[in-house]
Amino acid sequence: MPVMFATSEEAELAFYDALERADMERLMQVWADDEEVICVHPGGLRVVGHHAVQESWQEIMANGAIHIRPSNSVVLHSMMSAMHSLIEQVSVQGPESSEIVHCYATNIYHKGPTGWRMIMHHASAAPSQAGMLDLHDVPGMLH
Amino acid sequence: MPVMFATSEEAELAFYDALERADMERLMQVWADDEEVICVHPGGLRVVGHHAVQESWQEIMANGAIHIRPSNSVVLHSMMSAMHSLIEQVSVQGPESSEIVHCYATNIYHKGPTGWRMIMHHASAAPSQAGMLDLHDVPGMLH
Repeated sequence: MPVMFATSEEAELAFYDALERADMERLMQVWADDEEVICVHPGGLRVVGHHAVQESWQEIMANGAIHIRPSNSVVLHSMMSAMHSLIEQVSVQGPESSEIVHCYATNIYHKGPTGWRMIMHHASAAPSQAGMLDLHDVPGMLH
Repeated sequence: MPVMFATSEEAELAFYDALERADMERLMQVWADDEEVICVHPGGLRVVGHHAVQESWQEIMANGAIHIRPSNSVVLHSMMSAMHSLIEQVSVQGPESSEIVHCYATNIYHKGPTGWRMIMHHASAAPSQAGMLDLHDVPGMLH
């Protein structure tokens, strides 16, 4: 089944949905396969190229689905590309219960002949206050 | 003096050069001022907006210049935007000597009426092997 994401938002929904379902095929449909792609997992080495990116997700998903709730998205559009900056609320299973850790993700999408596809995912650990607070251009918020 | 960067590479050179010289004015010329900008410093909270980004760099540069050697750049171009993924070799002054730590940086530039400007800088700590090794689409390299 061919896929075609009409917007970068659609591609992003599919990305986190595929992680939630541990659906590798769907996940790799989100990534561009006609140009270089790059992925930085939190704490990991940089991964370059479609095949290497696929292997990195396979390793991560070896233990099952990944539950990430994307939030606080800021989207900056250009003509044929879009940058999404967001906070990932990642559910991590502890010994007794699950807890939430926060990551910052920068997701970049390009529009090509097959619609919008991901070309970059850079995720890194965020401070625990990240869920509630950005440092903003709002008078008084920084002081 | 107005500035105009003809390419994203020129803007990136100016960015790291401004950090090296602790030149705040030059640094903020690199950042777009006609649209939202976002900055994630390693371990810090997300910073949104030109003024807040400026304050964050001022805090960081309060102790002087920052010596970063950019390396291993992978650049993905779109029509009016460019994404640079690179390894920052950051000189950190220890009690007796300086050492190098590695960060991954994702720098995004948009082309506007005033040339190429930075709209996003996402930097995060990288493993110590980052300087030598990416996980690549090269047969045999992953195993």
